[in-house]
This record gives sequence, C-alpha cells and structure tokens, in this order.
Amino acid sequence: MAGEFEVIARYFAPLAARAPGAAGLRDDGAVFEPTPGRDLVMSVDAMVAGVHFRPDDPPETVGRKLLRVNLSDLVAMGAAPRGYLLAAAFGGKIDEAWIAAFARGLARDQEIFHIDLYGGDTVATPGAPTFSLTAFGEVEPGRVLRRSGARGGDAVYVSGTIGDGALGLKALSGALPGADEAARAALAARYQLPEPRVALGLALGERGLASAAIDISDGLVADLGHIARTSGLGAVVDAAAVPTSAAAARVLAHEPELRQAILTGGDDYELLFTADPSVATELLELSEYLDLALTRIGSMEPGRGVRVVDAAGREVSLSNGGWTHF
Amino acid sequence: MAGEFEVIARYFAPLAARAPGAAGLRDDGAVFEPTPGRDLVMSVDAMVAGVHFRPDDPPETVGRKLLRVNLSDLVAMGAAPRGYLLAAAFGGKIDEAWIAAFARGLARDQEIFHIDLYGGDTVATPGAPTFSLTAFGEVEPGRVLRRSGARGGDAVYVSGTIGDGALGLKALSGALPGADEAARAALAARYQLPEPRVALGLALGERGLASAAIDISDGLVADLGHIARTSGLGAVVDAAAVPTSAAAARVLAHEPELRQAILTGGDDYELLFTADPSVATELLELSEYLDLALTRIGSMEPGRGVRVVDAAGREVSLSNGGWTHF
Repeated sequence: MAGEFEVIARYFAPLAARAPGAAGLRDDGAVFEPTPGRDLVMSVDAMVAGVHFRPDDPPETVGRKLLRVNLSDLVAMGAAPRGYLLAAAFGGKIDEAWIAAFARGLARDQEIFHIDLYGGDTVATPGAPTFSLTAFGEVEPGRVLRRSGARGGDAVYVSGTIGDGALGLKALSGALPGADEAARAALAARYQLPEPRVALGLALGERGLASAAIDISDGLVADLGHIARTSGLGAVVDAAAVPTSAAAARVLAHEPELRQAILTGGDDYELLFTADPSVATELLELSEYLDLALTRIGSMEPGRGVRVVDAAGREVSLSNGGWTHF
Repeated sequence: MAGEFEVIARYFAPLAARAPGAAGLRDDGAVFEPTPGRDLVMSVDAMVAGVHFRPDDPPETVGRKLLRVNLSDLVAMGAAPRGYLLAAAFGGKIDEAWIAAFARGLARDQEIFHIDLYGGDTVATPGAPTFSLTAFGEVEPGRVLRRSGARGGDAVYVSGTIGDGALGLKALSGALPGADEAARAALAARYQLPEPRVALGLALGERGLASAAIDISDGLVADLGHIARTSGLGAVVDAAAVPTSAAAARVLAHEPELRQAILTGGDDYELLFTADPSVATELLELSEYLDLALTRIGSMEPGRGVRVVDAAGREVSLSNGGWTHF
C-alpha cells in the first residue's frame, strides 16, 4: 500500500483539480470564494464500516452514499451544493484497489452534482474503517428551509417513494427471502445509492413553497417528529397515503407486517416538507416539471408528537418511532 | 449511556448556542453568513484513539488538540478562525463522563479562540474511537499564505520552540527515563495541547511579511520539504539554530542522540515560514510585540530537497525526513 502522501496525490488530488482554491490538496487548507450575498450551509455525517455500511458493499458506492447523505442535508435546507471535505480512516480489508474504486465513485458523483473536493485527511485505523464528510453549499439568506417553520394546518408532503431504504437494507441482509430478484435489486440499489432531491430542494427554497423541510434519514415518523417538535406542533400521517415503489409494493403484498418498516425505517433521503394548503396546485405543477412524485401524506395539527392513522382514520400503534444511529 | 439525540442536546448543542445559524444543532445543516469580501478557508483533520491520541489521554484535551490542530492549519494560511464541525465515533471505554469532559474541553477552547460549533454527527463504532473536525475561517483574498510562495534566497523562520511535541510523546510513552519530572510534564503538555499561532498567522498575512507558510505537523524537515517542493526550490537548515525549549534542552543534554527527533518529529504546530531578508527588522518587532520567538533557521536555495547542516556547515544525515501519519 502506498503511503499517505502517495494515496492523496494519486486518488484524491484529482478530485480537487477543478477547485482552484484547493491547491491540489497540497496546502494546509483550501480557499473557497463565497458568492456575494449568499449564506453558507454546512453539514457533516460519519459512516463506520459494519454500522452504517456493509464492509462488502461495493467501494464505488460507499463514498457516493456518504456524499449523497450530506448533499441531502444541504438540499433539505434549500442550499445549492458547492463542495466537500473528506476525512478517511482506512484499515481492515481496505487496500489500494478499494481506495481507487472509492475515489472513482466520488469522481462520478462530483460530475453529477457539479461539486469539488476541497480538502481531506487520510489516516490509518486499527479498527473499523470510518469516513466523515463535511459538505457545504450556498443559499440566499431569506430562502433557507428550516425544520421549525411548520404551521398548524399545513399539509405534509413527501417526495418519491418511502421505505425503499429500509427494505433495501433487509434485502442486502438476506431478510426478504420471499421477494423477487428484481425487487431485491431495486431496493438494495436505493439503500446503497440514495438520490438527494437537489432540484426539489432548490425549487422549494427559491419559490418559498415549503414552510419546513427535512430529509428522511431517521425514518418518516421520526423525521416528521423533528419538524413537529421544533415547530411546536403535532402531526398526523395517513399510512395509506404514504407512497411506495413498485418493488416495495410487491414485497408488502407478501409480507404486510413490513408496513411498519416503511413508516419507521430510515435511509430514504426523500424530502419531507410542510406547505400551506393554498400552494397545492403549484406543488402539483412542480412535481410534473421535475418528474418527481410529491404526495400529500398528512397534516400538521395542534398538540405534540406524530399520530399515524389507517384508511379508516383509526390510530395505528408503532412499536418505535424510528431508529437512531447511536 | 444516553442515546444519540440526548448526547447531542446535553453536551454538544450548548457549544453551538452562540452561533445563530447552527439552530442548536437541531436542523439538517448550519448556516454561516460570510463576511462580505472575505474568502473562506477550510481544513479537516482526523484522530484515531491509539494512533493519534492515547486512549488514556485526559478527555478534556483530546477534543482541544483536534480543534487546535485544525486552527493551526487555518492560521498557517493567514485565516481568522470562525467555527467548526465535528464528527465523533464513540466506542470502547468512552462513557458519558468522558463525553462530558471532552465537550468541556471544547467549550474552553471556543472561549479562547472565539469560535463556535456549527454542526456535528455522533455515531457509535465497534472499533477505535475516531474524531474528525472541519474548521473554517476567513481571510482577505489577497492575503492568503500558501506553501508555494517561497523564493530563492528567502530566509526560513520558525515560531516558538521545535521538537517539544515529539519529546512530549516520548515522555508520555515512558521513553525519557533520564528526564526530570518538570521537563517531562512540560513536554507532555506541549504534545497534548499545542498552541496554534493565531496572532502570528494573522499578522504575517495582513502585513504581507511571509512569502510561504506551513504549520509544523509532520516534522520540521518534512514540512520545510513541502514548502520547498511546492515552491520549486531547495532549502538548507542550520541545525544549531533550531530553537529548543528549556525542557527539551535539558533532555538533549543527557540524550544528544534525540537531536534528530527535534528536526524530524511532528506535532509541534509552530509556524514555519519564509520571508524576504529585507523584512528581518519587521519580524523582530513583530516577535517582540507578540512576545513569541521568531528564529531564522535557514534559507531557501536553488535545487530540491532539504539539507541540514551543523554549526561547521557540514551536512547532517537524517535517517528519515519526518514521519507520515499513514
């Protein structure tokens, strides 16, 4: 295995080549020139092998997932992604080929999301390989989306489909034996390579359509709970309205008890947002323009906590409110 | 042990209390309003228990050292520190008391350096506890200090004293049996709690006194090598001119073979910079104003690589050019 400086020069410096202020990662820090009049938005996430990703996950997707999880945080605040810094503790079975594939994945996502690497640190660990990534973006000061802005009576929306991340993790763990091969592959791909809703987050912020927003990482019920708590409200979710993918629907047809995993599982990275009912038509048009489903799944209401009701309006009991990373 | 959200609310959210854009760490990301006309400088470093710090180091100093290492990177570029984001993978023997002390240490340094926590992620690891920290600061665009700006004939300076970090690590490992207790304690403190040279870095940048700068983390010879290589030059160091602390001098008196550790050991976090010989008087005045030694230890010269010479001008052979973190 090459040393620290060689690994940086060979695999990571090319990721910083387009960012003039990064100086090829050869300086103590990187310089970023902010766009005048914009605020900076920053987010950090960490991943540990065996906890947040599977050691045998394809290395191309490990870095991309970490990057996308952070981009998802930025866009949930209405910010346009600009760049990131990466701290990597390599160890265990990670060899140079693994690092090369990891960096290739990041390079691919840099093209997709028009961002650059601005800095990094690579160290060796005797324990589980661990990565942390700090992403930054820019937003107009008045257009920041917050968790805390929901108002009573606001509609609750989600983008895309919910629960694929949780079912994807089960598929990868061999816990969906009854599912067909295509469903397993589709769900696993959603878990390994989530799709941050960049265009949606930017549009919601710029047009002022959402009163509050969050990305679904802890699970639909837990994350709606974050919006409710910080907004001083309660929320109700119509379980039957929660949109699922075709793959998830096929799994649920055989294993209806997994319905709870849809509501409480994490790792979807769809946007969950609240909006005044008066903008429903604008959201419909936005959904068509982006070719991305935006589904109303509930409402904000007085009180506290998140209630889940079935199609008949009866309250559904959930054994837990989501999962925490700790 | 409390869960992820409780740990954040109890120990880390207070560290973000003064930063309005951090929203108490209760949002997806934090907002930072850049000072108009300034560029942002960012740096990231990671630390692994048992590799970069000792598992039995006082938890108060572990976070502070990580923070200071990053602040040292910022000031080596002439930037004024503004804030930081922290990713923490807790595990092993780390309990809530450890986390509380770790956070207390950070709180203390936030006061000293006038910075705030802007974001974080806490996860659990089955392996070695691992921390990474991204610090950011601001600099006037024309005042950035780079490694690559040295010119032939420039003088090479260091701040403070060199080698205390390396001897401090030896002292903590019991490898300096001949040293007196006071020397061991002083050197250990330098290793555990380095002093980023904030005022010096800012003054060098604002007054345009340095042509290139770096902080000494890999070791004097290795870090001067970084300046030489990126500047397309060589450098010569007069070993006898390298300033040592009183504690280090007492150790060297008994163990002169440790002289090489002074030159190649890391973890000093003093500033190493180059300057045109014409500003020698200004640097002397700055040294007096800051009450901080600034010592000329060599020169930049044509060629490549770093030569070390003794008092008689004879070249000294070093068995390695410093140490790498990998």
